Order: sequence, then structure tokens, then C-alpha cells
Amino acid sequence: MNITNHQSLSYKRNKLFIDNHCINSITKDIKTPFYLYSVKAIENNYLNFSKEAIKNKLHNPLICYALKANSNIHLLKVLKKLGAGADIVSGRELKQALKAKISPQKIVFSGVGKKEEEITLALNCHKEGIYSFNVESIEELEMIGKVAKSLNKQARVALRLNPQVNVKTHKHISTGGKSHKFGILKEDIEAALKKKKLWKNINLIGMSTHIGSQLTCLKATEKALNELSKLCLSIGHNLEFIDVGGGLGVPYNHDQPLSSLSDYMKLVSKVFKRYFKEMPRIVFEPGRYIVANSGLLITEVIRTKKSADNKFIIVDGGMNDFVRSSLYGAYHHVLPVSKRSGKRSPCHVVGPICETADSFASYRELPPLKSRDRVCIGDVGAYGHTMSSTYNMREKVKEYVIDLDGKLLK
Amino acid sequence: MNITNHQSLSYKRNKLFIDNHCINSITKDIKTPFYLYSVKAIENNYLNFSKEAIKNKLHNPLICYALKANSNIHLLKVLKKLGAGADIVSGRELKQALKAKISPQKIVFSGVGKKEEEITLALNCHKEGIYSFNVESIEELEMIGKVAKSLNKQARVALRLNPQVNVKTHKHISTGGKSHKFGILKEDIEAALKKKKLWKNINLIGMSTHIGSQLTCLKATEKALNELSKLCLSIGHNLEFIDVGGGLGVPYNHDQPLSSLSDYMKLVSKVFKRYFKEMPRIVFEPGRYIVANSGLLITEVIRTKKSADNKFIIVDGGMNDFVRSSLYGAYHHVLPVSKRSGKRSPCHVVGPICETADSFASYRELPPLKSRDRVCIGDVGAYGHTMSSTYNMREKVKEYVIDLDGKLLK
Repeated sequence: MNITNHQSLSYKRNKLFIDNHCINSITKDIKTPFYLYSVKAIENNYLNFSKEAIKNKLHNPLICYALKANSNIHLLKVLKKLGAGADIVSGRELKQALKAKISPQKIVFSGVGKKEEEITLALNCHKEGIYSFNVESIEELEMIGKVAKSLNKQARVALRLNPQVNVKTHKHISTGGKSHKFGILKEDIEAALKKKKLWKNINLIGMSTHIGSQLTCLKATEKALNELSKLCLSIGHNLEFIDVGGGLGVPYNHDQPLSSLSDYMKLVSKVFKRYFKEMPRIVFEPGRYIVANSGLLITEVIRTKKSADNKFIIVDGGMNDFVRSSLYGAYHHVLPVSKRSGKRSPCHVVGPICETADSFASYRELPPLKSRDRVCIGDVGAYGHTMSSTYNMREKVKEYVIDLDGKLLK
Repeated sequence: MNITNHQSLSYKRNKLFIDNHCINSITKDIKTPFYLYSVKAIENNYLNFSKEAIKNKLHNPLICYALKANSNIHLLKVLKKLGAGADIVSGRELKQALKAKISPQKIVFSGVGKKEEEITLALNCHKEGIYSFNVESIEELEMIGKVAKSLNKQARVALRLNPQVNVKTHKHISTGGKSHKFGILKEDIEAALKKKKLWKNINLIGMSTHIGSQLTCLKATEKALNELSKLCLSIGHNLEFIDVGGGLGVPYNHDQPLSSLSDYMKLVSKVFKRYFKEMPRIVFEPGRYIVANSGLLITEVIRTKKSADNKFIIVDGGMNDFVRSSLYGAYHHVLPVSKRSGKRSPCHVVGPICETADSFASYRELPPLKSRDRVCIGDVGAYGHTMSSTYNMREKVKEYVIDLDGKLLK
């Protein structure tokens, strides 16, 4: 049985192994807490994603990995070698993608708050600029046109449709509703297309949508893609690509009902075949799917604490290092690096931060744990380190990468 | 009328002033987003707190400012000069307090996850170590004893009682319930006092409690202080001090019902007078009360966006810079640095981060705003910068302090 979502994590003689390397042996000298990412897991995820798209006859797909999930430079270089592009949301993410040698012609720029200097950077990083600005408002379109004009360039843009669908996910990461800040309403897109002066320094080359993250059901996705297809056809404009966004959920918890990658790709294929004689190029923006299961947060037990019926495992990783459990109440596996024999009992796994929210798990059945034992929080490769802080004046949590040969990269 | 909780914030000819300095004039060359703190506000708050304690005949109070709220070195130096001690929760906070020249004999160390090296640091920073370790478990007491023995020292400790009260505040910051990780149950304290070997290198000099943060009603506080007093008397031990923790709420919203500082001090005084012939020294651990209203987050409007009936003000500060609105759904005032004339309308004030949670205000009545206008988020002096991150690869948000002469300190 897989222990987490990560296929190459397993116990051998009660020691936790990652990609056939004993975690204790390779990391015992590293000071906790720290993140450990597996290159192998990321390669697997990317190749699965890519194969499944091609299997479903999605023509020349462009997989733009969403840096906001994890912008570690080693991981980006691995993804670049596999052919990935990048979905970026800030000027500094753009620089990081370029540092990993990802081609500007594979970079899409998302986000509602692109600043003038960021737009300039993106237009200047190649003779034609980046592959596409995914534009979130008509006001942004105007700003891009103004900057492009001043640089005497043509900006390549896709308009992000707000499809007005509500999605079953955490309310913080649902993004396709009418009162959300993301995307443009259909009527506003149609009106903008008629305004010629908007398009002087802008080429409309695509349309996009993105309705949220960690989506576990495909109904809303189908509705959104239908809306997007109809709009693409109705505007009668020759589009180079359609960007379907990201958001495919990953199974943090074994019990979680979830749509598979295969179901997702079948749906995308089915919808576009229905509407288009000749399938446009599909751009994907996966983040979580590529990296979530590649990462562990390795922490050390400071002490255990008994209080009436409650047993606390106090670890040295906190909500400042990994905030998903606090911010979204997210479930994550808790795995001892070395399993002690003995009876399992329900434990609260908590950090040292002075907030009740600083908790990784409640009433979790765990084998005995003692001070100095190491414990992993599983499936933390996405939205882990990127969201970490130094709250309580703690040191910024470090990252390590284990490559295909079992070598640790810092 | 006060605009925020900050008494010296006001509009003059539609320009926002802080401590009689025009914000626009003194900060227009600083790149947004950034925090701006007022020394004057902090001085006022500290002096009010101290005066009110003395007015209520609380004997020789020690006000240990909680660094986790805001550990800016300039502010700590101001508080040090006023006589403040420090409530710290990590080794690095201890170093910061010492850097501000706060005497170790005014430092209390709280938190469930004190590590051996942090305990060592605290025992070594003065010939007697810090004023007190506020101990959260018997297991921690054992570790402190072990470290003190190895250093041939006597550690000064207070035991933190878990009073088993439930508090009206956000569940993330309520800390006095039975299943919370904080404090020690009464029966465990009584049992520990009987174990002589626990106390070889430890002097019990105080008792403490702390039931949560941003408390708006004093009923739970009264219950907790009653429990604490009864326990202090029943153990028959001569105590140097009682630490009543922090947690007094501040009025983020004008409509919020709230207990005043005066009511709070009266309650503390009343409870202890009832139980003690000779009042012990009272230690306070205020954080939010001292700094919340001293801080503004100053951001710039990137653009406005209209979408059907929704009007978005997209600013360049995000949830990574200030997370309370996202994490706790907290209300904060939104104030234009220069007010334009025109009709107010309901706006969503949102950041550039690709999460729906990245929002400072919904349906907030605001005067007209344009691109490049500056907007402040109010009352962000506590749990603002300390909880900030670099999510989306954004730069770490900067801090500036305005001193009593109107000089800006970086």
C-alpha cells in the first residue's frame, strides 16, 4: 500500500524509505525542520500528465508548471529538461523561470495584479515577449497595450473568462465565481473585442479559464470548459491556444473521493472535440499535481505531553513552516521516520508556535514516539515552502532535493 | 472621530495624517507595500497600560511585551526605555530582546516547544538566567531541570495553568481549553509539586495562565484568574509573582463590543484582592494591545476592476504581507492616503495573490480610487510583519518607524 500519495515512499524494517533511500541515513545530519523533495516523484508526475494528454489526442499540449506551488530552482530545472513551460504570477517568478532556462515562449503570466514594471519585464524577455499574458480584466488589457506601445512591441494575450461557476473546494481557493476577483465576464470580453483601439499593440492568441485549486469533482470544470468553448466559437477569432488552467486535486487523504488524471484528460478531450473540428493547442497550468506528493516536511519531536486524555506530540516544525493545516484545515499524513514497536494511540501532532491553529493533526493514530524521534508531514511539496514565514522569529525553513541518484541537493 | 483605533490618525484637507505628519509627504518616495509604525502610539499604549495597573493598586507590575506581536528593533528599544520587559517564545526572540537591551530579569519565556538549546541560552544569558520560564508541561519541567543541572544553575519557573475555560474569540487563538496544547491541568500541577526530585535545580517562583488572544469579554478571564488564585493558595508555596498572560482585545471595528483596559485592570485587581492579603507581583504579557493600532500597511492601487456589480480595488499589498484578513477573516479599516472627492461606493479591496482569500475588505464603502493612489490598511501593528511571507516569490515587506520627531527610521 502506498503510504501517502507518493508512490515511492515505503517502510522497510520500520525505516521510512523514499525512492529506495533510507530517509534517516541520508538526512540524519540535517537540522530539522526541513523540506525534502523527490526528483523521481516530480518526473513521474510530469510524465504521467504529459502522456495522458497525448493519449487523449490533445494536440501539442503546453504544460506550464505553476511556480506558485513550489519555485525551488532544482525542481524547475528538472521540469525544464522534461519540456515544461511555466505559469508565473509575479516578476520574481518570471526571473526564477528564466534562471531555470525555461523558454519565454513557454511562459504564461497569470494574476490580477500585474504591475507596469512586471509587464515591461515580460515583454522584454524575448523579442516577442513571453508566450502569453493571461489577462484578468479589461483595465489590465489597457495597461498592457499602453506598455507594449511604449516599447513598440506587440503583446500576446489570452483573456481569462470568469465562467461564473461555483466549485466544491475550500472557499479560499475557489476562483470562478461572479464575485471573485479573477477573470472577465463573457459580456465584457465581447464588448472589448469590438473596441479596436484596445488591440493596437495586442494580439489576442488565446482564451483561458481557471476555476480553483484542489478540485475533487469535474462537474464545474466541464461547465467552465463548455462556456469557454462556446465563447471561443462565438467570437469568430482564430486562436492559437486554449488555456484550461490548473486545479486538478490530489489525494491528501486516502478516503477522499477524487477525479483521476485520466478522467480529467478524457473530459478536456471530450469537451473540445465536441466544439472544434480542428483542436486548438491546449495549455495546462498544473502546480499541485506535479509537486504535492514529492515533498516531505521532516521535523523532530521536542517532547511529548500528556494532559488528561490528550496526548500531544510537540514537533519542531510549525505553522510558519507549513501553513496549509492551519489555513485550510488540510489533512496531511504524519509518518515516523523510524517506527517504534508498540501500540498505536490517538495523538495531536502540534508545533511550537503560540497559536492553537499550529497543529498538523488531531486524534491521529500513531505508534509510540519519543523526544528526538523524527516525524514527516506528507504531501507537502505544493504550497509548503512557498507559503512559509519566520513567525515567532524562527529561521526560514530550508529545502533539500533528492535527485535520481540519491544525491542530496541543497 | 478617530478613524481607526489609533488616536492620532486623522484627515486634514483630505490628506491622512499620523501624529500630525502628512503620510503622503513623509513616505511618498518609499516603494509600496510597506509597514509604517508610530512610536507615539506605542508610547501612549504602554503608558496607559502601566498607569491603569498602578491606579488599580497592582503592586510593582512587570509588563512583559509579547514580541510575537511585533519584534521590530526600534519599537523594542522604545518599550525598553519605558521600562517594559519581554515575553518571548523562541531563542531568536530572546536574542532580539537582549539586542534591545531589555534586562534578562524582565524576560519570561513562554511556549510549548522550548528546545534544549533555547533553554540553555535562556539560563546562560544572566547569572541567574531569565526572570522566568513559563512552563507548559511536566515533560518540559523535566527538561529544564536536566539542562539547569548540567549547567549547575537554578532555573526560575512559573507553571502555566490550563484553566479549562472556553473563550469567545477565533478558534485559532483560543488557548485555554482542555484539548488545547497549552498549559498544565490543576491535578498535574499538584502531583508534580509532590515529586521532590523534579525541583532539585528549579525554583518555583510563579504561576501563570493565558487563555487566548483578542478576547472581547472578561467572563472567561475572571474564571481563569479565580482558578489560578485558588490553586496558588492551595499549594501553600510562597510565590514571587502571578502572570496573568495577555490577550486583551483591541477594537479593530467600531461596532465591536469590547472590554476596556480599565475594566480589565479592575477585574484583575478585584480577583486578587479577594484571594490575597498581600498582593503578589503581577506580570502582564500584552502584545496586541501595545502595538496593534500603531501600524499601517501602506499599499498602492495597481488598478481598479469592474465586473458586473462588483468593483475591485486591486492593491499591491497581499495576504503574504498581511495575513490576518485571510487567516482569521479579520476586519481592518481601509483608508485612502489622499481622499478624492466623489461618491462613496462599495468596493472589494484585494491583493495580487492568486487566491480568493487574498482580500482585505469586501463591500467596503470607499471614495473614488484610481491607479497609483495609495491606500492604508489600519491597525496592523500586531501580527502583521511577524507573520508575513514571500508567497508568489514576492519581496519581504519592509518596515518603517516614525519617531516622536517625525523622523523615519528604517
